[in-house]
Amino acid sequence: MSLDFELLKVDPESAARRGRLRLPHGVVETPIFMPVGTAASVKAIAPDDLERIGAQIILGNTYHLFLRPGHELVRRHGGLHGFMTWPKPILTDSGGFQVYSLAAARKISEEGVVFRSHLDGSRKLLTPELSIEVQEALGADVIMAFDECPPAGSDRRYFEDSLARTTRWAKRCKDAWHPEGKSSLFGIVQGGLHPDLRRRHAEELAELDLPGYALGGYSVGEPIPSMYESVSTSAPNLPADKPRYLMGVGTPEDLVTCVGLGIDMFDCVLPTRTARNARLYTSEGIVNIKNARYADDPAPLDPACDCYTCKNFSRAYLRHLYAAQELLAYRLNSIHNLAFFLDLMARVRAAIEEGRYAAWSKAWLEERSLRLREQKERA
Amino acid sequence: MSLDFELLKVDPESAARRGRLRLPHGVVETPIFMPVGTAASVKAIAPDDLERIGAQIILGNTYHLFLRPGHELVRRHGGLHGFMTWPKPILTDSGGFQVYSLAAARKISEEGVVFRSHLDGSRKLLTPELSIEVQEALGADVIMAFDECPPAGSDRRYFEDSLARTTRWAKRCKDAWHPEGKSSLFGIVQGGLHPDLRRRHAEELAELDLPGYALGGYSVGEPIPSMYESVSTSAPNLPADKPRYLMGVGTPEDLVTCVGLGIDMFDCVLPTRTARNARLYTSEGIVNIKNARYADDPAPLDPACDCYTCKNFSRAYLRHLYAAQELLAYRLNSIHNLAFFLDLMARVRAAIEEGRYAAWSKAWLEERSLRLREQKERA
Repeated sequence: MSLDFELLKVDPESAARRGRLRLPHGVVETPIFMPVGTAASVKAIAPDDLERIGAQIILGNTYHLFLRPGHELVRRHGGLHGFMTWPKPILTDSGGFQVYSLAAARKISEEGVVFRSHLDGSRKLLTPELSIEVQEALGADVIMAFDECPPAGSDRRYFEDSLARTTRWAKRCKDAWHPEGKSSLFGIVQGGLHPDLRRRHAEELAELDLPGYALGGYSVGEPIPSMYESVSTSAPNLPADKPRYLMGVGTPEDLVTCVGLGIDMFDCVLPTRTARNARLYTSEGIVNIKNARYADDPAPLDPACDCYTCKNFSRAYLRHLYAAQELLAYRLNSIHNLAFFLDLMARVRAAIEEGRYAAWSKAWLEERSLRLREQKERA
Repeated sequence: MSLDFELLKVDPESAARRGRLRLPHGVVETPIFMPVGTAASVKAIAPDDLERIGAQIILGNTYHLFLRPGHELVRRHGGLHGFMTWPKPILTDSGGFQVYSLAAARKISEEGVVFRSHLDGSRKLLTPELSIEVQEALGADVIMAFDECPPAGSDRRYFEDSLARTTRWAKRCKDAWHPEGKSSLFGIVQGGLHPDLRRRHAEELAELDLPGYALGGYSVGEPIPSMYESVSTSAPNLPADKPRYLMGVGTPEDLVTCVGLGIDMFDCVLPTRTARNARLYTSEGIVNIKNARYADDPAPLDPACDCYTCKNFSRAYLRHLYAAQELLAYRLNSIHNLAFFLDLMARVRAAIEEGRYAAWSKAWLEERSLRLREQKERA
């Protein structure tokens, strides 16, 4: 097995864990946030930027890469690492989530999912076996089992059928997977907001003894407190000696909260997507850099940040770039938002190491909430 | 006077000159190509990229910056150097060319030009005095006199009236200018393809004894051989001891040719604009990276190039980025095209230093023409 996960420390007063994940392309210190590089590019950012902000592992999307440029082409170019010139670890998702959220005319059967490409409308079939084949061709350090992610509002009966199928698919993924290769397979626990279904599904998947486990199906529209409640009851059902990954989550507040519930890995398009929409995370709150109030502001975006953007440019310049639709705006904003998320995770890890995560996270969340409230009142 | 121009060498068999231009923000080795940073940003490129590819001086556009974000705002933020965080020399144009090419409903009078902003339709008046005021507020190392650039097809009579006015405007610019400041004022010689008008205008402007002179009004649709012919007769009319700048020109072939005619400085949007349209200049010819033929090509864009793009990425990856409309495509393509132009100018300077520019440029132009012909035949 090419994955080694070491639990370095568990917080005495929360479920927070400080870990170290050794993967073929490098070591990942957990808890970690993984920038999303959907189509073999973390949008608007090059590998030099990612290195500079200290990214340890990034994510690629199987659905997008399967459709374009195709996994066989990527394999010929040294896998995703060689193709996009990223030497550090990569995790690929299974394509399941995107098939349900992006593709048209999807039809689920025991075999897999038939769908129409969002690019050219062509008919495609994605199966558990093909998902693993694609992900192994992409050569990711961590690959995900092909699952169904039912809509948040689905009824209990639909969830039960779906979970049983996702378990059968997980077994087929395990059979198709080459554990002697460089890709470690993670299972995905679904079950929506039903604690008993989450528990049963976690137990079924734990029997497969995979290298790691994820919680899927959050961040699809459920209320935040319900998500926290569900993660708090579901995370303990995942094997304690293996990495736990909460898929597609979330805001800085989500990360700090869910680390305290025992999560080791996160990914989300939030920092890069909001950056492209001028919404920037700072130690002082959220800056909408489009706002005219920043037009003449000589201060750096975030005085507490060391990123290339904050070290070199003023809010006035960033506001001008965005207003003038200069392409540079997207890069500078994305660098900063990712730096904010990665820096936050570095502070999270330090707090766990010092055995004070419960207190640190409580103080951080209160302070953050206060800042955002103050900011709202000023607006 | 804050400009010092030293002629280091003149080619024995052509008019090519190797010079050194000392400006308040640094030394510029000529002949030089200046990347265009229209709205306080060389499109898709940050200062770190510009440093890395060896840019010595960049250009800003008075028209754009006057309209947005406004020169008073830029002045408050440390001028263009402080605002965009570019520590090396900057040249700004006068706004004249853009008023004629971009703005609507323009009306020329002795006072100046009334036009409607291409951004919001608001009515603006740009005069010689205001152009200088704006450019001094922007704080460029080199600023340009406000001129009229008549359409290429204008008749001789129109040219004569226009040139007389441009001379009167140049005098007003000189009167408005603060020569003790950090901005050196260049005059702009117009006259279309009329050698006698170009000569007379050059003589009129030379009497103003400005720190440098430009040839304007080319690259507006005239045939290339006519442009070369006109530059070859016009360049010698400019003072030999001052820098000579050919505005808005041009292709690699134009640069190599016009250096041989005695030009020291060039600017053009060509490398950055074509980069954003997937047209890339290489030592092997022109690569249209959109083309399916590159989809599986593992070679670097230009094996002879040392830029970040060529050192790190394959044609297949660049083609994928462009096809997927990834923002990174624009940055990587722009870095390369500018590196190609700047590297070419470094070779131009070396050839002049070695006293072999006439032979070098002849061989380079023949080789280039051959490459492009071969490429066309293969297509």
